[in-house]
Amino acid sequence: MANQTKPVLHGYFRSSCSWRVRIGNFKIPLNLLYSLKLTQEYKTLNPMQQVPAVEIDGITLSQSLAVIQYINETRPGPRLLPADPKKRAQVRMISDLIASGIQPLQNLYVIQKVGAEKMQWSHHFIDRGFQALEPILKQTAGKYCVGDEISMADICLVPQVYNAERFKVDVGQYPTIKRLNQALLEIEAFKVSHPSCQPDTPDDLRA
Amino acid sequence: MANQTKPVLHGYFRSSCSWRVRIGNFKIPLNLLYSLKLTQEYKTLNPMQQVPAVEIDGITLSQSLAVIQYINETRPGPRLLPADPKKRAQVRMISDLIASGIQPLQNLYVIQKVGAEKMQWSHHFIDRGFQALEPILKQTAGKYCVGDEISMADICLVPQVYNAERFKVDVGQYPTIKRLNQALLEIEAFKVSHPSCQPDTPDDLRA
Repeated sequence: MANQTKPVLHGYFRSSCSWRVRIGNFKIPLNLLYSLKLTQEYKTLNPMQQVPAVEIDGITLSQSLAVIQYINETRPGPRLLPADPKKRAQVRMISDLIASGIQPLQNLYVIQKVGAEKMQWSHHFIDRGFQALEPILKQTAGKYCVGDEISMADICLVPQVYNAERFKVDVGQYPTIKRLNQALLEIEAFKVSHPSCQPDTPDDLRA
Repeated sequence: MANQTKPVLHGYFRSSCSWRVRIGNFKIPLNLLYSLKLTQEYKTLNPMQQVPAVEIDGITLSQSLAVIQYINETRPGPRLLPADPKKRAQVRMISDLIASGIQPLQNLYVIQKVGAEKMQWSHHFIDRGFQALEPILKQTAGKYCVGDEISMADICLVPQVYNAERFKVDVGQYPTIKRLNQALLEIEAFKVSHPSCQPDTPDDLRA
């Protein structure tokens, strides 16, 4: 299905989990494929029928944080998990609070099932998550989510704030989240991976 | 709030995420506290107001996989993430498929919002997740989820199967999941941590 010499990312411009992988994988050149048409072939590749999935080193990995950590551990480049075990645990805690506690509830296949209430539903759960995230980040943040080094937590935060804005959450209520998001959006890896400038971004959503 | 010399687990007998931590932390003695009454004091400790949360080494960690990995990295004992990077990535992929792709959708605060449809809702999303998990495990499993060593993936699987049974999912449809769950339930760490035998288990739910 894909050229095995260069890792392949199956993604979608607007998927926040795909964006995580785009940010986190600035270490390696990825071929980008857009697998929105969830074919039987894609179902074999990723039985969960979600993006992202990455074909790399002869295996297929889904789940964005597993992909990010695999690339982080096997390629040279900036470290996305701190060497200090406590800080590393805080990075994972913040990443999982977003990746397990917030994002799954506004995943496309979930809000399709929610139906007419989907806007209010998504707003509710993102807001609830941010109420928990704000005091945690207030304790752990320096320039970025945990101290002054960019980490996997930052990679989870920015796409989640983008989703929050889509669902009309008032991010201004969360000063630490707002400050971190603004600082991170100045960084090249976050800019070039933004949903507004991907090959599959529709013209009317381009920055 | 807690004796800092011995790590403290705030949990609940039936919470599948608390069970993960109970299994994964067989390396260290934990004080078990049961924080179901979500007081203001607990909200300060864990702003997400969920269990589990662990007070350890002077920090508080929530998010079960962050806790398990922290203990795994800082304490001697069996390794819950394989040394091989590809296998480690597969362990994380399976763990996250469960922890982000299935469990959040049947979390207590979510199904309370779903309301009357909660049984059908939970059944739907667990079944959908198991349909994806089964072919993945068929590829990765040996005696356990990834090869022949117990890993974090196994720690996620067993509590998820327990939840599946609560929501009347026919686990027999998934032969690999069923086989792995049966094998794992023979192991002491999974037995002693089972929801049916915790200090806060009500008498009518005891094994």
